[in-house]
This record gives sequence, C-alpha cells and structure tokens, in this order.
Amino acid sequence: MEIIALPAEMQRWSEAARGRGQTIAFVPTMGFLHEGHLTLMREGRRRASLLVSSLFVNPTQFGPNEDFSRYPRNFERDCAMMSEVPVDVLFAPEPDVMYPPGSQTWVDVSEVTKGLCGAHRAGHFRGVTTIVAKLFNIVNPHVALFGEKDYQQLRAIERMVQDLNFPIVIVPVPIVREPDGLAMSSRNAYLSAGQRKNALALSGALRAAGDAFQAGARQPRELVEAARRWLAKTPEIEVEYVEAVDAKTLDAVDRIERPVVVAIAARLGPTRLIDNMVFAPE
Amino acid sequence: MEIIALPAEMQRWSEAARGRGQTIAFVPTMGFLHEGHLTLMREGRRRASLLVSSLFVNPTQFGPNEDFSRYPRNFERDCAMMSEVPVDVLFAPEPDVMYPPGSQTWVDVSEVTKGLCGAHRAGHFRGVTTIVAKLFNIVNPHVALFGEKDYQQLRAIERMVQDLNFPIVIVPVPIVREPDGLAMSSRNAYLSAGQRKNALALSGALRAAGDAFQAGARQPRELVEAARRWLAKTPEIEVEYVEAVDAKTLDAVDRIERPVVVAIAARLGPTRLIDNMVFAPE
Repeated sequence: MEIIALPAEMQRWSEAARGRGQTIAFVPTMGFLHEGHLTLMREGRRRASLLVSSLFVNPTQFGPNEDFSRYPRNFERDCAMMSEVPVDVLFAPEPDVMYPPGSQTWVDVSEVTKGLCGAHRAGHFRGVTTIVAKLFNIVNPHVALFGEKDYQQLRAIERMVQDLNFPIVIVPVPIVREPDGLAMSSRNAYLSAGQRKNALALSGALRAAGDAFQAGARQPRELVEAARRWLAKTPEIEVEYVEAVDAKTLDAVDRIERPVVVAIAARLGPTRLIDNMVFAPE
Repeated sequence: MEIIALPAEMQRWSEAARGRGQTIAFVPTMGFLHEGHLTLMREGRRRASLLVSSLFVNPTQFGPNEDFSRYPRNFERDCAMMSEVPVDVLFAPEPDVMYPPGSQTWVDVSEVTKGLCGAHRAGHFRGVTTIVAKLFNIVNPHVALFGEKDYQQLRAIERMVQDLNFPIVIVPVPIVREPDGLAMSSRNAYLSAGQRKNALALSGALRAAGDAFQAGARQPRELVEAARRWLAKTPEIEVEYVEAVDAKTLDAVDRIERPVVVAIAARLGPTRLIDNMVFAPE
C-alpha cells in the first residue's frame, strides 16, 4: 500500500491512473478502523479497479466541546488493516496541509443538515461536507462509499454531490453490527464494560420501533414512542433525540407512506452514540 | 462550435477529451459578450488544446432588487462571436437544470467576500462561488480564465480553488477598456449617451489615484481621496464605495507596502458599474 501525504501528489497519482483507463473507488475515514470501514473498502474493491482510502481526523467537524483531541487514533493498526483489504493508496495528510492559514471556504448543505444531529452539533455538517468536497477534488474518484451508520452525513453528501455536480457515484453501505446488535463505531472504544452493555438499548429501541411498524403503526410518533419506551428501561442512557423522518429528505412526515428512518442519538457517560434503521411500507 | 445543454453530456465530452490526452481551457460567461470576454477566450485558446465557454445568467448571484430579469441577453450574437474565436464547446444550460427543486448546497468564501461589493450585494458572492464550483465540476477544465474587472470575484474564486483543492489553474486577465478608458462591461449597454460620458469618471478617478501613488502617496486614504475628488466633479454619479485595500486579501492596510487595489462601485441612474486598478510599490 502506497501512502501519500500531499494533495498535489494524490492528484497526480489519480490523474495518471485515469489516464491509463483505470477506475477509482474511494473510502474516506477518520481512522481507528473497524469491520464497518472494512466492509466499505471491500465493496469499493468490487466497484473499481483501484481503491483509495483516506485517514484524516477532520478538526472542522468537531465542536469546541467535542472529542477531537481524544478521538481514538492508531495509525499503524489502521495501515495494517487497510493493507489487508488491500487498499492501493492511503491518503493521509497533516491538518495544516488540509487547512493552511487563510483557509476560508465552506461547503454548506442547508436543509438536510438542519434536524437530527445538525440541531445538536453546530457546524458539524459544514465541516463534513467541506472536507469531503476537498477530498473528492484531491482523490478524484469515480465512486465513493459511505456507511449508513452516519445516516444524515450520507444524505448530506448525496445532496452535495448532486447540487455541485460532482461526477462521482455515491454508494451507501448498510450498517455493520456486532453480533449482539450494537452498531460498529470507532467511539465504541470509549465505552466501559457497563456502558457497552447499556449501549445495546439503542439497537434494541430501533428493533422495538420496527416491531411497532411491523404491527401496522404508520404514524412516525408511534415508532418514536416505541423506541423511547425501550430506551427508558436503561436510565443510564441520556437520550439526545429519537426521531422518525422521511428517509430521503429527513423532513417530518405525518404518515409513513414512503420509507422513514428512525434515528437515535444518546449519551452513555461522556460518549455520544448514534444509530438508525430505515422502515419502508410495501 | 458544439452547443451542449446538459451537465452529464458536458461531463462525458470532457472526460473523453481528457482520455485522448487533450487539455481544456474554460471561460464562464453570462453572455452579452464584449471584447473583454473575447480576450479571455483568446487567452484560453493559447493555454490548452480545447476551449470551452459557458453562457448562463446565474440567478443566485443577483439580489432580489437587482437586474437579473433585465440583464442583457443575445444568444445568437454570442454564439457567432464565440464561433469566431473559435470556442470548441459552448455549455449553455437552462436554469432549472442548474438549480433543480431541492437544490440546497452553497459554497461560501467567507473573508475576501466581506468588504467592497460583498458589503453591498448580500448573497452575491455565495451565488458566484456556488455556480463556478458547479461549472468546474461539469466542465472539468485544466485552466479557467477570469477577468480582473470583477476583481473581488477573481480573488474569491482563487481562494475557493485553493481551499477546496480544485485541480484547476486560475488565470487572471487584465481589464479591457474602451479607447477612452471605460472598462468594458455587459452592463455598459444600459447607459444613455449622457451616462456613458459620465461613466468615464470611474477610470478617471482610478488614474487620479494612480497619479497620487506615483507622486509618492503611500497611505491608502490618500489614494481614496484623490479618486473621490475626481468623482465629485461628476455630480450625476452616486458613489457606492471607493476603497484601497490589500490586492490579495482585500484587507484594509495602514501603509502601502505591498500591492493595493483601488476599487470603485458607483451608480449612473439605475446602472451600477465597477472598476479597479492595482498599484504596486517597487
């Protein structure tokens, strides 16, 4: 696996590959890889002749009181895992190369980023869409893969790609879960054994919402209430939001006539976790 | 000259040209061409094997009380002028193709767009940088050319290209003036004969600022005052701003130790004109 640190070098590599008629799949990451990332990468391998991944803990998507400085990092282990996929090129830039002094350009997706996490993490999605736009221009892939775990991020990036006419196909990849149901996340590393057990309430609550849906509930409120009842059984969990919204626009809906996503954000001690499931009427 | 109306078709054309090892120069326009545009296009011809221009009167860069609906248009004449350069491809999309329902993504350059025209035309530069980002992703050029007449626009686009890592070289092209000094602009078509004569005060004022600079003035205020004194001789002119700021960052400066741009915006009746000159200490 080749490791490239400079944007201009990455662009040259990509242009040369395209010149040879090769196709490029891209999986951006913040590192501390787990099976979810590897699933994205394996799917990328299948969809193009070359696979590029990036590792950059993007400071602009963390709020001032969030976990940027303590976000888990393990470069050696990440490289070993990527080599095994195998990833052809890892783009791993330094922060001051990505945001040199004087940087002042932001990409803002205004509507789908308003609710859910956007209402609780000011500036988060602006940071995400800006860094992804930069990475797209640096890696210049044909295809880019994103996990459905970060559901609102996926919708924001799809919207950005469409609105700014990026010639890139966005491939959503389903959430990868631990055998007991916990959605994989680099932040799961923060959890104590007790918190790890309590964290199961998130996926449990989503299954409870799904049971209500299966039983015929077609008001988003009913799904939310089912999820909230489940979460209430674990008082150690501090719920940030539970919502059931249109799966594409993330707008509120009165009745479930198109697919909805039920999304949860909750804290276990200082650790903020998110999870979601999509339910589609026949 | 080939005319393309659809983004996907333009992208295919561009990818095919790149696949053949050709290079692409790009000149975006809002049409109603004059010698300034043609100078950009001829310079583009010299810098790449293929020349693409676009014609799109971009609604998002006009304020609600500005001249979008009456902006001068003459598609046939523009096509004839482009064919003569010659332009290889004209990209001329419809507004609803560029901004379909649900569009919600903005590219914002926050600092260099604050002063000068940015202080008087809310949302203007956001509209400019957003449409240019879209056009860059659609045309995918190696080189793009912009006139120094829209000086702040040029600086905002350079900043955007650098900050978002667009692999595109931005080439600034000097202002083209009428023999009597008036900077060429599509909006000059709005002027009555009397206004046309009075409009000369803008370039005259910039020359007066230049005379002060040549005489040793090194305080921006001195250049501004020289320009304002000149403008005051034409009471029909309503001055919006006269400023002398750092030519690169557009920040205020105390003393002229690096290049400064003296920029003017003024109204003649309903018509808003801008002009500028850069003065560089040895």
